[in-house]
Amino acid sequence: MTNIGFIGAGVMGAPMIANLVSAGHSVRGFARSAASRERIAAAGAAVATAADDCLESDVLISMLPDSPDVAAVYLGERGLARSVSPQQIVVDMSTVTAETAIAVHDAVGAAGGSALDAPVSGGEQAAVEGSLSIMVGGEPDVIERVRPLLEAMGSAITHVGPPGSGQLTKAANQLIVATNIAALAEAVVLLESSGIDVGAALTAIGGGLAGSTVLERKRAAILAGTYRPGFRAALHDKDLGIVAAAARREGIALPVTAVVSQLMAALLARGDGELDHLALLKLARELNGRAG
Amino acid sequence: MTNIGFIGAGVMGAPMIANLVSAGHSVRGFARSAASRERIAAAGAAVATAADDCLESDVLISMLPDSPDVAAVYLGERGLARSVSPQQIVVDMSTVTAETAIAVHDAVGAAGGSALDAPVSGGEQAAVEGSLSIMVGGEPDVIERVRPLLEAMGSAITHVGPPGSGQLTKAANQLIVATNIAALAEAVVLLESSGIDVGAALTAIGGGLAGSTVLERKRAAILAGTYRPGFRAALHDKDLGIVAAAARREGIALPVTAVVSQLMAALLARGDGELDHLALLKLARELNGRAG
Amino acid sequence: MTNIGFIGAGVMGAPMIANLVSAGHSVRGFARSAASRERIAAAGAAVATAADDCLESDVLISMLPDSPDVAAVYLGERGLARSVSPQQIVVDMSTVTAETAIAVHDAVGAAGGSALDAPVSGGEQAAVEGSLSIMVGGEPDVIERVRPLLEAMGSAITHVGPPGSGQLTKAANQLIVATNIAALAEAVVLLESSGIDVGAALTAIGGGLAGSTVLERKRAAILAGTYRPGFRAALHDKDLGIVAAAARREGIALPVTAVVSQLMAALLARGDGELDHLALLKLARELNGRAG
Amino acid sequence: MTNIGFIGAGVMGAPMIANLVSAGHSVRGFARSAASRERIAAAGAAVATAADDCLESDVLISMLPDSPDVAAVYLGERGLARSVSPQQIVVDMSTVTAETAIAVHDAVGAAGGSALDAPVSGGEQAAVEGSLSIMVGGEPDVIERVRPLLEAMGSAITHVGPPGSGQLTKAANQLIVATNIAALAEAVVLLESSGIDVGAALTAIGGGLAGSTVLERKRAAILAGTYRPGFRAALHDKDLGIVAAAARREGIALPVTAVVSQLMAALLARGDGELDHLALLKLARELNGRAG
Repeated sequence: MTNIGFIGAGVMGAPMIANLVSAGHSVRGFARSAASRERIAAAGAAVATAADDCLESDVLISMLPDSPDVAAVYLGERGLARSVSPQQIVVDMSTVTAETAIAVHDAVGAAGGSALDAPVSGGEQAAVEGSLSIMVGGEPDVIERVRPLLEAMGSAITHVGPPGSGQLTKAANQLIVATNIAALAEAVVLLESSGIDVGAALTAIGGGLAGSTVLERKRAAILAGTYRPGFRAALHDKDLGIVAAAARREGIALPVTAVVSQLMAALLARGDGELDHLALLKLARELNGRAG
Repeated sequence: MTNIGFIGAGVMGAPMIANLVSAGHSVRGFARSAASRERIAAAGAAVATAADDCLESDVLISMLPDSPDVAAVYLGERGLARSVSPQQIVVDMSTVTAETAIAVHDAVGAAGGSALDAPVSGGEQAAVEGSLSIMVGGEPDVIERVRPLLEAMGSAITHVGPPGSGQLTKAANQLIVATNIAALAEAVVLLESSGIDVGAALTAIGGGLAGSTVLERKRAAILAGTYRPGFRAALHDKDLGIVAAAARREGIALPVTAVVSQLMAALLARGDGELDHLALLKLARELNGRAG
Repeated sequence: MTNIGFIGAGVMGAPMIANLVSAGHSVRGFARSAASRERIAAAGAAVATAADDCLESDVLISMLPDSPDVAAVYLGERGLARSVSPQQIVVDMSTVTAETAIAVHDAVGAAGGSALDAPVSGGEQAAVEGSLSIMVGGEPDVIERVRPLLEAMGSAITHVGPPGSGQLTKAANQLIVATNIAALAEAVVLLESSGIDVGAALTAIGGGLAGSTVLERKRAAILAGTYRPGFRAALHDKDLGIVAAAARREGIALPVTAVVSQLMAALLARGDGELDHLALLKLARELNGRAG
Repeated sequence: MTNIGFIGAGVMGAPMIANLVSAGHSVRGFARSAASRERIAAAGAAVATAADDCLESDVLISMLPDSPDVAAVYLGERGLARSVSPQQIVVDMSTVTAETAIAVHDAVGAAGGSALDAPVSGGEQAAVEGSLSIMVGGEPDVIERVRPLLEAMGSAITHVGPPGSGQLTKAANQLIVATNIAALAEAVVLLESSGIDVGAALTAIGGGLAGSTVLERKRAAILAGTYRPGFRAALHDKDLGIVAAAARREGIALPVTAVVSQLMAALLARGDGELDHLALLKLARELNGRAG
């Protein structure tokens, strides 16, 4: 049994807490909104009244919306990083910039603790099932110390490299997902242009080299014409911002990703940010003068 | 047993002939190059001395490199379409423009015969194994009459719509494959920019929503740094030309596909057309000043 | 005085005929529509009853909408190229593919005549004023022989290279115009996003390295929010098709042009093909959820 | 005569100082490098030993490389903004993010002073000649108070809107310049693909709707095949980063700019950041397998 502090209890964080509790760990959770605090209690964890209370733990996990949130919690004069104790391990599972991940790692290290960046993929369903794919950046021995906790939340725990690497891998993941959806969207628009049975065509396509998890999982929604999230376009846009920041930082050019990122940005600008990222298909149709 | 004429015996056509022969059909094949004629004999088929000889058949199948080849065989004053007999079925399995497919369909129909466009995916290995995915455009009853032949060559036979639909579906397939490879290439370049274990990262990525057949099948080649075809970039460039022609004909805009198509064209311009289409990764690296 | 046959009398051809007549030449014009034939008469030229009548001339000029029109007039079994007389010069001033231009050149040459491709830029106003910019591909001595005629229609006559070069230069011209408009459109959308005085900003921008003829000529329409042609998006889309065909033929990759071309295609798909090509700004706004 | 503090004396700042001195103003300049301090003295200004010394002035002007430099000078606990006196006007002429400009404006305002963002275009030559185009964001009355100083440095002073607007206008300017160069580069590659006289073709093109300042000013360098700056690609890449940040902040999609920006980034990644931004032509050639 490990004493765990957990900050953030949204649609992802809450079931992750529940899985840690189920695995026999003692969790104290903190969240700013009343709804999130209720989710913490419902997950069987203690509800902390301040983020600082989560420091009374062996491992401090966070699952927050964006880089500024993570920076606000850990960095700066009032950041928790200053107050970590030696032996304490911080595991930030939010999707943020590699830059933020490295800053947290260094600040925690300066106080004698250890930190990992461990973003996830798989979405709400995998969070509930404890089958997240977790991409971990940081020192190998630190990962080993928290592996049982990660395994309570995920089914595939992969150490990908030094601090920040988890986030860069997640960025690479998100650029692939967005681009694969964009490709599928353009293919569907082409198929729809001339009386083809789209369902049959997607079946034929999906069985060969054009097959993808995106095609499998979004097929029914494409045929039904629904864009219920799933994963909101607004979040994917945020993640593509992280990709762009990483590319600029590393000084690399990613032209296909850049175009896809603009299409995702257009989705938001047109008021469709709350739809599933499959709404790239809606945009592809509307760009061609058709009902989305 | 069906009497089959078969025109074209390249890397794909030859094993397709062999599978038809194995299924008990009588095949007479024609090809222009001596090497291809040898492949016809080796596949157990009779070698015709002229394309016209293949007309003495119930079903005439063709597997040729490009639209002009198919047009040259079937259309014009000397085209075979003029000489088909009623009840005869033409099945063009080449990857060509929908426009060409429809022209062949109409010309054959004018002479009293029937025609299907039935391009394939799966590559040489699937052609050998008889496990091609075959996307068929044309009249349903015609498809039923040749289904046993198609099943001798492929494991998934899908009727997708009216004449030309097979080709449009293949075009959609090829745009997805190219774009999924391009996405993977940009992801790998991003991962390589900062000391990440690319193999581990691809494993983590492949298990989630970013998974794809392209990722699965190209993973080993990516890690080994080889670009042995597989499917040559030059052929994929030809297919993306078909996609562009279809988009222009249908009056639709496909921005992501357009960028990917330019990258594929650049591969050829740089002298890498004979490499596997995975060489989009080589280009992505070179665009960023790295060894390809 | 030269005897001139002139085929095509649209919005561009009619004033070109008028300028030839004004310069003292004898012109016999042919056009298919009654409206165009009236324009020929109004321009002071004789109205031919068939295209063949235009062959009774020293120089045969054509100004037609698209490559298939030019091919229909000159090529094939009934094409005029077969009937040209030695010493006769064909000057096709339409905007068509370089491939078409070279085919006309070769067919005319085979019959003993000479041919030039001489597309123009400048639009209706320059056609009326006789101030077109004319880009000429073909043999230098042939150009010298018709230079006085070209100078009756244009103010800048430039020999750019061998047959087809005029068309390739026009293609290069059209890709620049479209891309410069697209750049201006994105700049305006950026400026509009935050309370900037767009007119003042365009003035400031236009005075420096960002200045362009497009900015100068389209500034008033941008500020007034009108998209009256000018040059219709549908025609520019046709021209970008010629650019794409040239790039594919030459085996070159033009990624920026490819994206701009997709945006122009989207304009048409959305029903805005009859607007001025400045409507790329309308699309840029609508892509961002704003009124176009 | 106005007492002016001037921070930054690089290739642009030094001649701007010289023009202020020539116009009869008293300038005290500060710069971190010894070379820049020598340029300050050579321009006829007093050399300050610390940035703070520049506060003893009526107007404080800065011309610095990038957003972090400007933030370091003005913002934070030790920033000069805290120490401005009422009536003092800060004019930041650097090219930075609108966000930075607004932060400086607000920080200076909080201390009782006034601030303008006033980036320039025109490059070193215009800085020397005092013919810069200056795009100014801020309150109109503040602009009037410093107009004589701006007129000593530039020939076109344009008020474009509220604080930050100068920077957004400069961003719009830079996206147009980069895209117009990219268009020109692709046009040249197309022309070069088939024996055309590129010089003649550019002359023909430049006279019509495709004309631009970029075409005029870069024509000689294109024909000579040189990429001597001028304006370094690395700086333009920085500016396109500002454009991307502005677009993300305003939530707008700029697809053409995004592709051009990736090409500029590729230039840097390939080691050509110190060449003139015209080197987009070098990249366009190399992308097509030709000598750059």
